[in-house]
Amino acid sequence: MTIRHVVLFTYKPETPESVIAEAIGLLNALPKAIPEILDWAIIEDEGKRPGSYRFVLIASFDDLAAVDRYLDHPAHVAAVAFGGPHIAHFAEHDHAV
Amino acid sequence: MTIRHVVLFTYKPETPESVIAEAIGLLNALPKAIPEILDWAIIEDEGKRPGSYRFVLIASFDDLAAVDRYLDHPAHVAAVAFGGPHIAHFAEHDHAV
Repeated sequence: MTIRHVVLFTYKPETPESVIAEAIGLLNALPKAIPEILDWAIIEDEGKRPGSYRFVLIASFDDLAAVDRYLDHPAHVAAVAFGGPHIAHFAEHDHAV
Repeated sequence: MTIRHVVLFTYKPETPESVIAEAIGLLNALPKAIPEILDWAIIEDEGKRPGSYRFVLIASFDDLAAVDRYLDHPAHVAAVAFGGPHIAHFAEHDHAV
């Protein structure tokens, strides 16, 4: 049962683009560091609607336990430590595919 | 350029399950009513984490204009009119696939 991990997130308006780029860079480096990640894509929103979050992460894992190991992995913890303080809104969802 | 429309949403805690079921039923009837919808899935979250939203909608459209026609379609407007007042959190994202 593969789990698709979907995260919608957007940064605070005052966050410099350079910080956003560095935060996304740290996240996009995670597949190399965390073997539980089966596939991974961070994509910018094109809809630009009132409810739109700027980024979506869509990643896949073998199961929920693998998602937990990913979340607890030092590389993920470090990426979140850097980007987290700049996040305005965050929403996540895990489902079997 | 197909657009993937991703919506994470969750209902207010006090919303009766019967109302949630009816709201999801109205949404799941939309593919029959709205030709712009290429594919459609509403799936419940299994992660149950603090940031988890209960439902994800993943739907596809030919382009952003088709997403706009879907959003303005009377059947969508009616479904949102019914479920909207019960929504606690909502996040959306559109990207090309």
